[in-house]
Amino acid sequence: MTITVVGIGLIGGSLALSLKQSGFAQTVIGVDNKTEHVIKALQLKLVDKVSILADAIKESDIIILATPVDSLTTLLPEVLNQISDNQIVIEGGSTKKPVIEAVKNHPRRNQFVATHPMAGTEFSGPEAALDNLFENKVCVLCDTEDSNPEAVQTITNLYESIGMRVISMETSAHDLHTAYISHISHICSFALAATVLAKEKNENSIFDLASTGFASTVRLAKSNPETWIPIFRQNQENILDVLDEYINTLLKFKGLMLAESYDKLKEYLVQANDIKRVLDRK
Amino acid sequence: MTITVVGIGLIGGSLALSLKQSGFAQTVIGVDNKTEHVIKALQLKLVDKVSILADAIKESDIIILATPVDSLTTLLPEVLNQISDNQIVIEGGSTKKPVIEAVKNHPRRNQFVATHPMAGTEFSGPEAALDNLFENKVCVLCDTEDSNPEAVQTITNLYESIGMRVISMETSAHDLHTAYISHISHICSFALAATVLAKEKNENSIFDLASTGFASTVRLAKSNPETWIPIFRQNQENILDVLDEYINTLLKFKGLMLAESYDKLKEYLVQANDIKRVLDRK
Repeated sequence: MTITVVGIGLIGGSLALSLKQSGFAQTVIGVDNKTEHVIKALQLKLVDKVSILADAIKESDIIILATPVDSLTTLLPEVLNQISDNQIVIEGGSTKKPVIEAVKNHPRRNQFVATHPMAGTEFSGPEAALDNLFENKVCVLCDTEDSNPEAVQTITNLYESIGMRVISMETSAHDLHTAYISHISHICSFALAATVLAKEKNENSIFDLASTGFASTVRLAKSNPETWIPIFRQNQENILDVLDEYINTLLKFKGLMLAESYDKLKEYLVQANDIKRVLDRK
Repeated sequence: MTITVVGIGLIGGSLALSLKQSGFAQTVIGVDNKTEHVIKALQLKLVDKVSILADAIKESDIIILATPVDSLTTLLPEVLNQISDNQIVIEGGSTKKPVIEAVKNHPRRNQFVATHPMAGTEFSGPEAALDNLFENKVCVLCDTEDSNPEAVQTITNLYESIGMRVISMETSAHDLHTAYISHISHICSFALAATVLAKEKNENSIFDLASTGFASTVRLAKSNPETWIPIFRQNQENILDVLDEYINTLLKFKGLMLAESYDKLKEYLVQANDIKRVLDRK
């Protein structure tokens, strides 16, 4: 197979590396509108060659769009306009409703498969690409009934070849669940980093004490705003719901501390310990 | 040296292992009021022998108290009552004001050194002990002017022998800074876990999507409430201050999302990215 990756950052670069390594792709073509990404991708050998989008599409069996989610609503229809009958287009965005809406009446809708390989780090750009980023992680395919079954099977094979467990989910469920277990984590971390950095202005030595626990909780605050602002915007409704619930939980904890109801607070912490069950099965 | 460790959990067990390994301790005696901890500590060879507190004190050059912070205010004066002129007592609690208050007029106050080895994991009990937990971490000594200078030097040597960087800090600064860079992280994680677990009751498959980012942010929610409730209680005032600031930051983010002021929100995320500077120097 020849595969084009549009957007050679953390996700696109890692897909390029992994698909070459698994043998699923014989040739990977890189496309990126940032010159420095194109140069880095060649230097780091993430792709076999680079090209402009229109030329790359012509040569490819599969076109993977790995650009920020706000660009996908215009990029995806443009690419679908340019493909012929046997080509498949996928994107890997963290929100699904807007991109699926954008092509719902497109004549080549069934050559598009909506996918979300659930993996990442707090780093970005071609230098962040890893050849094992997706191993043992989950990839969600959304609204597969609107895609050609052969295309769905090919894309399932693609993700399985790089070690992913492929599951299907309806778009609205996907966007709700990612709000809860991915997007809110980023907001928590960004807000915690902002809070402590603001304090630091008056307290120079505050970070002498920064522990591994702190590092873990704020890790996601290093993430790229260029990636995350479009996600927050596109999934605004779900994220605001979970953010409200999170703030309410914090207000409840605060109220229990103010009332010195530490026995009650302890019950909540014991319940929260149940997160072990979830994390340990991953 | 013969060293007694009272409380053979994550911190006490790790100190026992590390101090034997570094050669600072020739003999480590374990004391714990939980029978299962005593048995496990022997099985895992965390200590050379176990004993009851009064006997262990008589044999020891240094007595380390590694029990939950609420117990220290009674335990520390009891131990100071039993020591003779050349013995030193330290504790490793995450809050300092109450324990220091508890012994401020004790005739052997200067044989006590208040220490906080800033290291830990989300696990607890003797099985959680690690021989390298403290390597390259910071240990804070508080209010060292109230301790005998030779005792301070001995304890500095003790922590340096296991790879720690020792710094001094005034108690109130310590308790403020730990609220910002340790205690609040635990509250964030506990609250996030509680929020998502509550949602899970209605949404079975929510954790199919749990990513490494989520795992990182909620990791501390696995922590032991027996350890953390006393810390939250003792450092209530500082924690409530930082919790208010954190909630205000989240409310600001929420307001910007509701107003669709994503350019402004992006500015905050870019500022929060500055946390890299802090984490990368660790």
